[in-house]
Amino acid sequence: MEWLNKMIGDVPDFPKPGIIFKDITPVLKNPDTFKKVIDTFQEHYQNLDFDYIVAVESRGFIFGAALAQKMGKGMLLVRKPGKLPRKTLKETYELEYGTDTLEIHQDDIKPGDKVIIMDDLLATGGTAQAVSRMLKKLEAQVVEQAFVIELGFLKGRDKLAPDQIYSMINFE
Amino acid sequence: MEWLNKMIGDVPDFPKPGIIFKDITPVLKNPDTFKKVIDTFQEHYQNLDFDYIVAVESRGFIFGAALAQKMGKGMLLVRKPGKLPRKTLKETYELEYGTDTLEIHQDDIKPGDKVIIMDDLLATGGTAQAVSRMLKKLEAQVVEQAFVIELGFLKGRDKLAPDQIYSMINFE
Repeated sequence: MEWLNKMIGDVPDFPKPGIIFKDITPVLKNPDTFKKVIDTFQEHYQNLDFDYIVAVESRGFIFGAALAQKMGKGMLLVRKPGKLPRKTLKETYELEYGTDTLEIHQDDIKPGDKVIIMDDLLATGGTAQAVSRMLKKLEAQVVEQAFVIELGFLKGRDKLAPDQIYSMINFE
Repeated sequence: MEWLNKMIGDVPDFPKPGIIFKDITPVLKNPDTFKKVIDTFQEHYQNLDFDYIVAVESRGFIFGAALAQKMGKGMLLVRKPGKLPRKTLKETYELEYGTDTLEIHQDDIKPGDKVIIMDDLLATGGTAQAVSRMLKKLEAQVVEQAFVIELGFLKGRDKLAPDQIYSMINFE
């Protein structure tokens, strides 16, 4: 995935000193690269049976929407608290300092629905784990978790077992 | 746009008592409706000359990404403070109580770039006005502002003059 690697920016000391931030905005700005990312996801998923793409706020919305549109699938939103207007299931998870909460519309999932969870980045896996947990509480079947970028050295993938993981590019 | 109207939910007293929230999540969940929305945008924009879709966090990301992908255009992000890693232009605007700030990567726009601004909802127009102002500071040409839903009774459109406005459905 050299074509993708060269379009992802490294921004040192963002958001905190010592962290090198992976900047995907150049991928989106360039229509050819953006298309190639979505085509690559489509190729990977075209023979897989699933009902919805569950997109995680907010960069997951970008890739989730483009892929759902391209594959003719429905899209469900996982959002930060207080954004979804109907009855939600809430899932709280631990951060380095404190906790965070995510929500999904409860009636959007029927037991047995097959979903792919989409976010831009797999880091420590805390968010992805919470999203998977909430979907399983609603008795959805998590077919796979999809990411553009995986920071393999953070071992997030281990935390998500036994979920299946697909990442387009892995920084190990 | 009866097909669209019937897929937009009315949620009373959200986020505050007395407000009827327009819920677009059923539009996204249904692949046919989601596709029809993006097809309708594409039809509207296919003969228009523009370089980028500027998508506003976070529901603007959904429609902006799907349309950019479909039309083979690049996508730029307008985000809440502290999210974009490179040098940004910040624009602060007034809310009913207090202020809010949005950011865009400064080097993403060259003078003369033609952009369409995309968000899901035009309400009072405060956000859209701020986005337009920041793009004009960077000497972009705002070809049009695009929304799925316009709350016409709030007169946001007047605030955005002389920008051209397109909304797919208008609640007057």
